[in-house]
Amino acid sequence: MSDIAAPGGQVSPEHIMQIGMGFMASKVLLSAIEMELFTDLARRPGALKDVQGRLGLHPRAARDFLDALVALGFLQRTDGVYANTPETELFLDRHKPSYIGGILEMANHRLYRFWGEMTEALRTGRPQNEAKAGDEPIFEALYADPARLKQFLKAMTGISHGANVAIARTFPWAQYHSCVDVGTAQGDLVAQVALANPHLSGIGFDLAEVQPVFEEYVEQLGLGHRLTFVPGSFFTESLPKADVVMMGHILHDWDLEQKKMLVRKAWDALPAGGAFIVYETIIDDDRRKNVFGLLMSLNMLIETPGGFDYSGADCMGWMKEAGFKDTRVEHLVGPDSMVVGIK
Amino acid sequence: MSDIAAPGGQVSPEHIMQIGMGFMASKVLLSAIEMELFTDLARRPGALKDVQGRLGLHPRAARDFLDALVALGFLQRTDGVYANTPETELFLDRHKPSYIGGILEMANHRLYRFWGEMTEALRTGRPQNEAKAGDEPIFEALYADPARLKQFLKAMTGISHGANVAIARTFPWAQYHSCVDVGTAQGDLVAQVALANPHLSGIGFDLAEVQPVFEEYVEQLGLGHRLTFVPGSFFTESLPKADVVMMGHILHDWDLEQKKMLVRKAWDALPAGGAFIVYETIIDDDRRKNVFGLLMSLNMLIETPGGFDYSGADCMGWMKEAGFKDTRVEHLVGPDSMVVGIK
Repeated sequence: MSDIAAPGGQVSPEHIMQIGMGFMASKVLLSAIEMELFTDLARRPGALKDVQGRLGLHPRAARDFLDALVALGFLQRTDGVYANTPETELFLDRHKPSYIGGILEMANHRLYRFWGEMTEALRTGRPQNEAKAGDEPIFEALYADPARLKQFLKAMTGISHGANVAIARTFPWAQYHSCVDVGTAQGDLVAQVALANPHLSGIGFDLAEVQPVFEEYVEQLGLGHRLTFVPGSFFTESLPKADVVMMGHILHDWDLEQKKMLVRKAWDALPAGGAFIVYETIIDDDRRKNVFGLLMSLNMLIETPGGFDYSGADCMGWMKEAGFKDTRVEHLVGPDSMVVGIK
Repeated sequence: MSDIAAPGGQVSPEHIMQIGMGFMASKVLLSAIEMELFTDLARRPGALKDVQGRLGLHPRAARDFLDALVALGFLQRTDGVYANTPETELFLDRHKPSYIGGILEMANHRLYRFWGEMTEALRTGRPQNEAKAGDEPIFEALYADPARLKQFLKAMTGISHGANVAIARTFPWAQYHSCVDVGTAQGDLVAQVALANPHLSGIGFDLAEVQPVFEEYVEQLGLGHRLTFVPGSFFTESLPKADVVMMGHILHDWDLEQKKMLVRKAWDALPAGGAFIVYETIIDDDRRKNVFGLLMSLNMLIETPGGFDYSGADCMGWMKEAGFKDTRVEHLVGPDSMVVGIK
């Protein structure tokens, strides 16, 4: 925010212009991911004409596009040869397991457009995604199409992998023997926990459609013998019992009553002394620092009928209401924190 | 860019996620401008329920929306009362002459959507604005509708006012007696120059449709006796003669041959010793620093058949080709610089 004040202490319009026009930088990066520029450059860096030909860029557009990505810090240009930065090489090459582009592909295909209707969402409180036209709830539409479902589940892995690794390393797993990941998707959270803690067994719990995607993923990681998939809906069924119940990027999808119901189901699934771990972009209690958490809450406005993100204090309140005795909030990585409740 | 590297020197995905999801912060600010939030708060700060009612926000959305704007640095919240920051109070209250929201209103109504087609623009080299459907060139469509034209011309004033004031103060105007602003729009550049330099007379040159908007603006500033509007097209006519010819945010709209033609017409309009001032978001010569200039060039891809932004070296080259002997580049404010050529 150092760009707000101009030299001499005068106020400057730069921060307003930078954020107001920020969709431009955003869309340049999203188009680069869509065109697989970083995946291409991970195979081989290239000069302007070379990259232009490989990506099918129009001659009028290629140089500005690539140089804008240089200026934004997503490409390096040395003696006219364009190459990935260490960040884009690691996180935006789709052939690497560290690829986080899935969530950004989804943002490019869907959210950019739906967020164009933000004003209507603010006035009506109603979702602005696929549900707006067809009234088909987002998860039903998603789970009905295996290819789209797999893309979505991979995107979830991309956005949560860093936090998953942090939970696997920092939580006192030595005290526990089993865990269940509720709404497990590909299973990266339970997989990272199992990789870092060889004594643990784990369950991935999600709708039946997710099972093949989960099993393919954990087999690839050689965890098939310790991790099991249990199909089910957390609305209609009890949660599988385990020493630790985890919910990552789950609670924010649902309204207050649904959130509290899920917290109670976690309580029911735990033994005395068991732990409930909730994590996502937990908003700071004073609601003035975690920009991404607040924007994710507005994304729930765009995507769901009643979902919202919340602060650590909010979540600890619901946990205490359900009977959890000790609760705490711990920062993980970037905008993500976890809230832990001990039964 | 300090957020690229995580503690311990590991690469982090934060910068990628921040820019990739940057359209969200952008759209929150643009919707706030559209709903005249900052204009409303300039009249009177308000608590959540109060602002919610005044703006017609849905109860589900209001708190996240306002707190996201707090976290982004566009609102202050003190004891639950929301108020503008010094920046939004000055630049986003539409009742103040310092309002720069016009360009952002235009971005919200038009560019956000058109930039959604960036990938197609990059592949085809073709505009993605109104012209895509109807083939009506942007300026013709704009100039045919007086209300839209006035909105556009005011937006141009908003985006250029800071640079106009810098040119009025820093250029050695004492050496000259007259100036002409080519593509003058509301006339803010020539008006600021005249306000800061009482010995000067000036001409605003633009299409005839602009005349009432120009004359209303310069009359408001009490400059009617020193500033004259000359109607005409810089494609079909010679430019009015003056000691200084200025073009702000003009050259980037056009292709290379058109740019060179305009530079030649400036040369023809000047006496020996006269000065040609070109200004806009001039790209740094190495094309790796001025993000906004490079994005503006991609905006020309979206908006025009052949326009592009350019570096100071590019522009000085065209000036020298036309016969200008001394040329220089001077930074103005934010992403804007001017290129000066002396005949």
